[in-house]
Amino acid sequence: MRNRPPTIGEYLLNKLESYNIGHIFGIPGDYVLRFYKLIEESSIQHIGMTREDAAGYAADAYARTNGMGVVCITYCVGGLSTVNAIAGAYAEKSPVVVISGAPGINERGKDALLHHKVKDFHTQLRIYDEITVATELLDEPFTAFNEIDNVLDAVFQYKRPGYIELPRDMVDVRGTLYRRASTGEHKSDTDSLNAAVRDAVKFINQSKNPVILAGVELHRFGFQDKLLKIVEEKQIPVVATLLGKSVMPEAHPLYLGIYEGAMGRREITEFVERSDCVIILGAFMTDVNLGIYTANLDRSRSIYATSEKISIQYHSYDDVMFEDFIDLLNSDKLRKQKKPNLSWIKPESKPFEVQPKKSITVKRFFQHLNTFITDEMSVIADVGDSLFGAAELRIPQHTNFISPAYYTSMGFAVPASIGTQLSVPNTRPLVIVGDGAFQMTGTELSTTVRYGLNPIVVILNNQGYGTERHLLEGTFNDIGCWNYSSLPTLFTAGHGFHVRTEGEFDEAMKAALDETEQFIIIEVELEKLDRSPALARLAERMAEEI
Amino acid sequence: MRNRPPTIGEYLLNKLESYNIGHIFGIPGDYVLRFYKLIEESSIQHIGMTREDAAGYAADAYARTNGMGVVCITYCVGGLSTVNAIAGAYAEKSPVVVISGAPGINERGKDALLHHKVKDFHTQLRIYDEITVATELLDEPFTAFNEIDNVLDAVFQYKRPGYIELPRDMVDVRGTLYRRASTGEHKSDTDSLNAAVRDAVKFINQSKNPVILAGVELHRFGFQDKLLKIVEEKQIPVVATLLGKSVMPEAHPLYLGIYEGAMGRREITEFVERSDCVIILGAFMTDVNLGIYTANLDRSRSIYATSEKISIQYHSYDDVMFEDFIDLLNSDKLRKQKKPNLSWIKPESKPFEVQPKKSITVKRFFQHLNTFITDEMSVIADVGDSLFGAAELRIPQHTNFISPAYYTSMGFAVPASIGTQLSVPNTRPLVIVGDGAFQMTGTELSTTVRYGLNPIVVILNNQGYGTERHLLEGTFNDIGCWNYSSLPTLFTAGHGFHVRTEGEFDEAMKAALDETEQFIIIEVELEKLDRSPALARLAERMAEEI
Repeated sequence: MRNRPPTIGEYLLNKLESYNIGHIFGIPGDYVLRFYKLIEESSIQHIGMTREDAAGYAADAYARTNGMGVVCITYCVGGLSTVNAIAGAYAEKSPVVVISGAPGINERGKDALLHHKVKDFHTQLRIYDEITVATELLDEPFTAFNEIDNVLDAVFQYKRPGYIELPRDMVDVRGTLYRRASTGEHKSDTDSLNAAVRDAVKFINQSKNPVILAGVELHRFGFQDKLLKIVEEKQIPVVATLLGKSVMPEAHPLYLGIYEGAMGRREITEFVERSDCVIILGAFMTDVNLGIYTANLDRSRSIYATSEKISIQYHSYDDVMFEDFIDLLNSDKLRKQKKPNLSWIKPESKPFEVQPKKSITVKRFFQHLNTFITDEMSVIADVGDSLFGAAELRIPQHTNFISPAYYTSMGFAVPASIGTQLSVPNTRPLVIVGDGAFQMTGTELSTTVRYGLNPIVVILNNQGYGTERHLLEGTFNDIGCWNYSSLPTLFTAGHGFHVRTEGEFDEAMKAALDETEQFIIIEVELEKLDRSPALARLAERMAEEI
Repeated sequence: MRNRPPTIGEYLLNKLESYNIGHIFGIPGDYVLRFYKLIEESSIQHIGMTREDAAGYAADAYARTNGMGVVCITYCVGGLSTVNAIAGAYAEKSPVVVISGAPGINERGKDALLHHKVKDFHTQLRIYDEITVATELLDEPFTAFNEIDNVLDAVFQYKRPGYIELPRDMVDVRGTLYRRASTGEHKSDTDSLNAAVRDAVKFINQSKNPVILAGVELHRFGFQDKLLKIVEEKQIPVVATLLGKSVMPEAHPLYLGIYEGAMGRREITEFVERSDCVIILGAFMTDVNLGIYTANLDRSRSIYATSEKISIQYHSYDDVMFEDFIDLLNSDKLRKQKKPNLSWIKPESKPFEVQPKKSITVKRFFQHLNTFITDEMSVIADVGDSLFGAAELRIPQHTNFISPAYYTSMGFAVPASIGTQLSVPNTRPLVIVGDGAFQMTGTELSTTVRYGLNPIVVILNNQGYGTERHLLEGTFNDIGCWNYSSLPTLFTAGHGFHVRTEGEFDEAMKAALDETEQFIIIEVELEKLDRSPALARLAERMAEEI
């Protein structure tokens, strides 16, 4: 007897396993219960969060570290609650698969007013068309397997979210296995590739002080080692965008720091903008990422290579794959640079001295925090000064810094820490989050308790939406006052600290590092209008547009 | 000198005031800060919530009681976080206006990668097209005022959400006042109207036991008094849909209870389904609303009148306005019914006796709670057994029961209580919410503290997604364990109770009624698999579809 083909639900789970998916984040609901039962019976673990959007952020962070992430929710009340999280994953190129339950095909007759429906049965699908690279409704057994392949291939290739809608009466239907016609492999055109590499090598070899600007795609495509190899073999110094942060081990002698135009450290801005050859790899020209367009990078002295475009000065090259370009660029023909003098760029590294009685300031807080960061930590920064200040942290291991630096959606960090730690279990998350952002999703600490995770969550409490106060102040920037360090009472687990001075923070961090079994929350009380030097520079620029 | 026209921002706020808007719910962000400043300077109060979706739920509840509600958020990170709340408002016909800030028109050149952007500058607008009746981008001073009018008129007329996108550089631009061409008033065709009313009167007069089935539109259009008048003058008994609950004062002798097919009380189902003339007013034939399609209402013995359709038995009538139809129906020609015998339908009203040591069961909990409900309370039920059980509560004042009974989005109730109390300040919200739903949005209690509100929040804790356990059980229905009654410590206000017995609940409710200055939280510990009689009937039916 021949083997029967799998059911649509089984096929989907098998494919996800082949993409290294070990966890699926989400909240069940009646339209997706049948598929949830299948997950429970599979080798993939379901991670129940408290809210669907938080499940989306967790899946996004998981995708950034694992190569793909999955969120699974019910129809509309679930799917429409993850829209913002998935939009953020689209904007920042994170390969997240959304699986939504849906009313059965056989229930859909006569425009029935089934619960959770909005305008018609395709409302949610059309909305996901706006924020994903591929959407499929699995309403037909003959095509379902190919449709699953289409979405997963697109997510993997473009590093953007995709959407699969699974009507509940299709979960257990057996699909049809057949070899579909190949859509053609994505390959470079050899002549274009050779021309691009030849021109790039020539341009770099003729330059006096080349520098690499490394961006987010190096994370997404897993090219961190390719970058490190070219940097070390050719002795080219490297800076990162904010979204690309931690693409290099940041203690590396050739890594200089974050380049973000007028918003960043003056020495780095100067070094990059005086370079006669800026090699931009996998970076997108976004506003916050590049200091609200204060970056000064003109095409006459740039090489620009991403998965979407390859250009050298004013020439663009079609049909050149990003990976092939990087691989061939690091050839014998590319000369090794003379050891550049970089000492003037690096920040003074005199050791931070704790002043125990001194009230904590944002600037010194990040210097202080830097002393605690180890190889075994993933740093996850929420938006606002949690992000701007964190730009100066030195992350020792690559890909151990995660933040929504372009889409900048508040409330990302606490749920993201869950996805990160499940994906990279040998690290401990260090979350930096403002009070306003924490109020949005901080109750996900409850989820860390359920699954035995142990993040250290530092809340920078400046009593409201701090970044906005520096743009336009009003009572609307105020928020409610929470006793954050009491949260362990609510969740009946964890430890809480409330600190005002450097000495208190020092002790709290040391206690946090000693307590490895559960979450730690450290509320850092700040002056309402204190801010990082980066935010001061940013706010000045942004306030002009308000 | 002639008066100058107002700015676009001023015009929008003035129009909102003319629709009785006293509060705007939302979270600021840089793209909407300028408009927030205008709100602060106006007579409208901004209500800052902790999350945008919660602001959406609050605006929805405010709209249900006030006639219109407004949520104001920033671009994408805010607007895409309110999608689910606004989809729910669409599904349940709640007139909510969404105002979103956006990048300035002058910033949008060259497909700039401004922060918060997803695919292109119109992503959010297209998404809102799917979940509103009208969308406008105010990018042109000459047309902006008309566009504002268009959205507000459509929201008011159709009782569905509308969307206004306000680029930040247009807020202070002066618009152009001119009288637009009238789009024509919505009026009944006199002959059609007369025919419909004549046929309806004849049908009712010939019937032996007519009954009115009252639905949600009577709330939305403010026709509660028209309903009461016809019921009292013609002595026609009345039942409500779940979404229509509290459309009548529920102690009224002619009010029988909720009709929801096989899910509801047997006597009511029998009475309605044996009637030879069911007058359906403003009700939609949705699934949960009508007991998962177990309602048995055939057209041969129905009059069906809503804002979207008027039909009598098999005849439909075009161009007949819902309001005109109701007004004319209650004419001298419609005969007064003989006093019907309804005593067998009404539940036995023997007084509830507290058994102090008895563990609380869902069934007795709702009977017990019923004894505490007064004219001065608004009851707000979240989904699941909070809703199914609450169907049996007797609400004395009309429109004092609010729930998402069709769209059934978890987490609606706590934020909705804020919108309700601000709209109807002389009532006190009594919130009934499950533990799973509370974990989604319960931290909005913080917002009640900020604005001096005093809801009583009863959490029915059955340790997970209780409704789903009765459909398909699995570990995915479990949730984290919270010490809910400790929340006053987190918010440094309120009082918390944790009760297991009827005696403890009785004492907690009495204490809650004595403490009128702040929120009260009462965690009711239930058996994991206990459920209301209605849920037992519903689950049996729904489990067939899983």
